[in-house]
Amino acid sequence: MFGVSYFDAASSAPLHPVARQALLAALDEGWADPARLYREGRRARLLLDAARETAAEAVGCRPDELSFTPSGTVALHRGVAGVLAGRRRVGRHLVVSAVEHSAVLHAAESLASDGGTVTEVGVDRLGRVTADDFAGALRADTALACLQSANHEVGTVQPAAEAAAACAAAGVPLLVDAAQSLAWGPVDAGWSVLAGSAHKWGGPAGVGLLAVRKGVRFAASGPVDERESGRSPGFENLPAIVAAAASLRAVRAEAGAEGARLRELVGRIRASVPELVGDVEVVGDPVRRLPHLVTFSCLYVDGEALLHALDREGFSVSSGSSCTSSTLTPSHVLRAMGVLSEGNVRVSLPLGTPSSEVDRFLAVLPGVVASVRAELGAPAASAGSGGASELVVDALGKRCPLPVIELAKVIGDVPVGGTVAVLSDDEAARLDIPAWCEMRSQEYVGESPLPGGGAEFVVRRVV
Amino acid sequence: MFGVSYFDAASSAPLHPVARQALLAALDEGWADPARLYREGRRARLLLDAARETAAEAVGCRPDELSFTPSGTVALHRGVAGVLAGRRRVGRHLVVSAVEHSAVLHAAESLASDGGTVTEVGVDRLGRVTADDFAGALRADTALACLQSANHEVGTVQPAAEAAAACAAAGVPLLVDAAQSLAWGPVDAGWSVLAGSAHKWGGPAGVGLLAVRKGVRFAASGPVDERESGRSPGFENLPAIVAAAASLRAVRAEAGAEGARLRELVGRIRASVPELVGDVEVVGDPVRRLPHLVTFSCLYVDGEALLHALDREGFSVSSGSSCTSSTLTPSHVLRAMGVLSEGNVRVSLPLGTPSSEVDRFLAVLPGVVASVRAELGAPAASAGSGGASELVVDALGKRCPLPVIELAKVIGDVPVGGTVAVLSDDEAARLDIPAWCEMRSQEYVGESPLPGGGAEFVVRRVV
Repeated sequence: MFGVSYFDAASSAPLHPVARQALLAALDEGWADPARLYREGRRARLLLDAARETAAEAVGCRPDELSFTPSGTVALHRGVAGVLAGRRRVGRHLVVSAVEHSAVLHAAESLASDGGTVTEVGVDRLGRVTADDFAGALRADTALACLQSANHEVGTVQPAAEAAAACAAAGVPLLVDAAQSLAWGPVDAGWSVLAGSAHKWGGPAGVGLLAVRKGVRFAASGPVDERESGRSPGFENLPAIVAAAASLRAVRAEAGAEGARLRELVGRIRASVPELVGDVEVVGDPVRRLPHLVTFSCLYVDGEALLHALDREGFSVSSGSSCTSSTLTPSHVLRAMGVLSEGNVRVSLPLGTPSSEVDRFLAVLPGVVASVRAELGAPAASAGSGGASELVVDALGKRCPLPVIELAKVIGDVPVGGTVAVLSDDEAARLDIPAWCEMRSQEYVGESPLPGGGAEFVVRRVV
Repeated sequence: MFGVSYFDAASSAPLHPVARQALLAALDEGWADPARLYREGRRARLLLDAARETAAEAVGCRPDELSFTPSGTVALHRGVAGVLAGRRRVGRHLVVSAVEHSAVLHAAESLASDGGTVTEVGVDRLGRVTADDFAGALRADTALACLQSANHEVGTVQPAAEAAAACAAAGVPLLVDAAQSLAWGPVDAGWSVLAGSAHKWGGPAGVGLLAVRKGVRFAASGPVDERESGRSPGFENLPAIVAAAASLRAVRAEAGAEGARLRELVGRIRASVPELVGDVEVVGDPVRRLPHLVTFSCLYVDGEALLHALDREGFSVSSGSSCTSSTLTPSHVLRAMGVLSEGNVRVSLPLGTPSSEVDRFLAVLPGVVASVRAELGAPAASAGSGGASELVVDALGKRCPLPVIELAKVIGDVPVGGTVAVLSDDEAARLDIPAWCEMRSQEYVGESPLPGGGAEFVVRRVV
């Protein structure tokens, strides 16, 4: 009938054949303790050294600057903590972009709850920080600044080199989270600390990278441990490390051609979805972006229902909609961008995705979205003029996308110049009602809190 | 000519065939993010849940009490930190045995350097704490007590159940490091927190276990993360977790028969080595011990030279001698026991070790030790009576085992009742000269510091 298309490489990529092969070989050759003097230990040490050289070459650093960690999250946590501790005498101020991975933002919260201060640099509607904003956040007591190479949810490439120059001028080390981009190439020079994650490039789970440039003040946190330059405690996960390094090299060898091919496929999705589906906002930078990733949001659509419907059609995608998160809040990235979060879909193509799978996705998507919209009773199009000039819609207790659907249903019932007030206690409404106004060229007046919780969101009909 | 015998299972065991098989299957089925809603994610979640149930059954806890960590070291670090933080209001006192794994002792140092206090409970000459000593160390402000199930260097089984009873009476949680014993069976009930390490039982590297009983106050340290009950951040290393759980079950199924068989082989080594080699101290409890592990020390032998000589003969063993450590200090376990550290060898047999390999080890060892001793000019046997009643031997600048060899060479030169003073600045001398006196029934008088560094160790000839 139809195939299965896994379109969530940005969460975890399927294991690359080279990774699998290297892992199998290293299971036989690399299970012993590389710290031991006997033959099995020496063999393990040789494998570990070779993997470190390979990975360092791909990262663009010296082998002795690179430590392997158990995950990208741990690399970020230890990288942030290590520089904060090493530069404690400078100060306890941390700069992060508002769209960093949650591992960085959680490390920032940890600092804040421990008495440090954090500045979050905002992004534009494409999800990009400006180098000026980033530079402006640096202070005399800034211990560290963090900026991702590219965003994991919307694919926007950040100005890492400009940020690094600003940081260098201010004498502040820059940590670059390169988890999403390392498959495609090294990060531009200028970073002080870099983190990566092997299962994002087709390596195995269980391996992260933490590179710390010589000269950066770094004090590993927690109990001492002699492994990995003291930066990541515990027995090395050697077979997985070997597989991670081998697959990074293999992926890089294909990156040029494969990146161009996937960039074209993603370009096709970016161009087609608004036409095929309607009432869609494609988010993220259309040009300065990762080759394989695109995110869009569909008005009047429940993200979880859409995910399940796509899953039934054989497509695995992720979503930043509030209804797909355990906390019922929209993705912090979409919030920081101020874009629509309802009916959100992230497509991230693994290496080798055939164009026929993208064709099938584009063929299936319109019907899937239409059926989800129909189930929710979404409005078809803007209606006539109507009577009362002020309407109140009580959407309290209703979850995304229902508040926006209720608003869209009645906007045609007030005359141009009239207002609709939507009462809602759904977190996503704060983001999605203004985003709907922007998409529909209506005026978003503002919100005011309700005594019993939630808020009143007021919209003025303009067209 | 001869085979290769890997006798260092206590460092890292070769991968169990069941682990290899499970890992291969899970590489295909379990690479996706178990937190995702689509089919690949749901499949990964099922594998993770099943692995947790299997591991929890082997540990003897509820699945929701068990978290997977990237290593045994990380399990210990996070286990100690989590209870210390959770019970901070009780106090900041930590009790550990003096022979815990370095990961526990480093966590203790970390607490001490952060203003907490630590009590190290000493051990007897067999490496065992008494439940009374352990109970006596508990105070009103004790947040946590740590005791291994069995020692990793000498195999001595600790009185974990009695310690747990004492802790329960005092209202103090007990953390049991079960890394060395988990292959052989669950730890007796009564523990509050338990840690393990998969590559010690034939599972893959990259997986540790951290079990925390319901009701234990536990506050995970560091940035928050939603995975593994918030106790171990980062993407789960799922294929390795699946392999770890499957191999633990498989190993347990063989534990009864294989434990009895290895116990007999180790018993043979314990009995034969002193006879075959001479001037040997077999250390650790002869009865209450791990089945597969034995440690002995050879007088007048350089541990590193012995390791290399055994390696050339095809035997991979480890050593707690000072000359094999980067810090030139003897193992903290041997020091705490007060036993000889020179020429130290730990043999730990992997599952399935054929008795013929042990036979070959016992056949090869005497010649290897003799040649190492000959190279060092070790004394053959005690000599005549001699002249001066007080001799001074200057061994300053000489490393283990040379100070003891110099002592042994001249003890026969003083009359019974006379003394030999050994001048030495080697850390191991403090342990090995008293240990030699004990083995040789000579009287150790004591040490006094030298003005230029090092010390004078005085021995009185008795026999």
